[in-house]
Amino acid sequence: MDTDSVRWRLLAEGEDANMLTRAQVYSAQERAAAMLHGAEIIITPGERAGIEVADFGLGELEQTGLELIVYVNTDRYCAKELVLFPRQTCPEHRHPPRGSDPGKEETFRCRWGEVWLYVEGEPVLAPRARIPQGHEAYYTASSEIRLLPGEQHTIPPNTLHWFQAGDEGAVVSEFSSTSDDASDIFTDPRIIR
Amino acid sequence: MDTDSVRWRLLAEGEDANMLTRAQVYSAQERAAAMLHGAEIIITPGERAGIEVADFGLGELEQTGLELIVYVNTDRYCAKELVLFPRQTCPEHRHPPRGSDPGKEETFRCRWGEVWLYVEGEPVLAPRARIPQGHEAYYTASSEIRLLPGEQHTIPPNTLHWFQAGDEGAVVSEFSSTSDDASDIFTDPRIIR
Repeated sequence: MDTDSVRWRLLAEGEDANMLTRAQVYSAQERAAAMLHGAEIIITPGERAGIEVADFGLGELEQTGLELIVYVNTDRYCAKELVLFPRQTCPEHRHPPRGSDPGKEETFRCRWGEVWLYVEGEPVLAPRARIPQGHEAYYTASSEIRLLPGEQHTIPPNTLHWFQAGDEGAVVSEFSSTSDDASDIFTDPRIIR
Repeated sequence: MDTDSVRWRLLAEGEDANMLTRAQVYSAQERAAAMLHGAEIIITPGERAGIEVADFGLGELEQTGLELIVYVNTDRYCAKELVLFPRQTCPEHRHPPRGSDPGKEETFRCRWGEVWLYVEGEPVLAPRARIPQGHEAYYTASSEIRLLPGEQHTIPPNTLHWFQAGDEGAVVSEFSSTSDDASDIFTDPRIIR
């Protein structure tokens, strides 16, 4: 998962009907900060003020979205803290190869709450996540992995994946190779990046 | 900081007088697990049982040592949780280039407690860490950085560094490029790796 406050249109206001307002962004930041606090994860005031709120351009943040802090992103590795509200979904995407780089490899480690993670592979018969209504065509990866606090899973490069928090939400640490959101490919063509 | 349970002689017993006994290792694991619990960092039972206890072959764990869990270490990135007992010191070392790799780059993020980190650069006049007695010759990096919870610092490759916890100890997340402890170079030639 990669974000960019400009390309994912986080803070500018009123550009079109789908755009998050400043008030919506601020409210989501407040809520994410409270969840981090509840998970005993300490952040600086600067990190608190800069929490990224990504609605992927769909204008339905509660359903499809993600809140996050990028701790570090060098040309070699990256670490982020992700916050998902209850049942909030990070939509399906993959990190393709770029030149000599095989694509971003990433590890999700659940710190608090519950995460339903889906990757390519053997499909589960009765998935526990609820695909956002009307978006079914854009969720194809259906091999299910449940992550509880302390549990983690590594996604190989160029592998379709998506995830949704359980009923209480989730806090997830992401460890990865360098992060370049410009290269992410989403299954849903409506996603603005 | 890299460890290896074999080369740093963690679990084998009685090989020589300096070797940690199984009881010492178990006790340090207990203590580290309690500190992680206190910091609200959740680990799996397997991670709990496998906490690495590194005394760097010096046989004075309370003074020079480190407890850690490697969450993930791929050929691209690595993430660890480090625990330092009160005033426990990770001795000075650097991560040199290896072939086309410029050497390990790493970010320390303090999660709990206090860390005094020293890197090459402008020396501090009155350092707040206490260099382990009799080891003064092996601590040369003297540019001081204090890390409190939520604060972090990135160490470039091939840069001498060492760190010591404050009076309460510390829990530190390490994010880095791939970790290869075989390549670490310690200033103290007595350190067995």
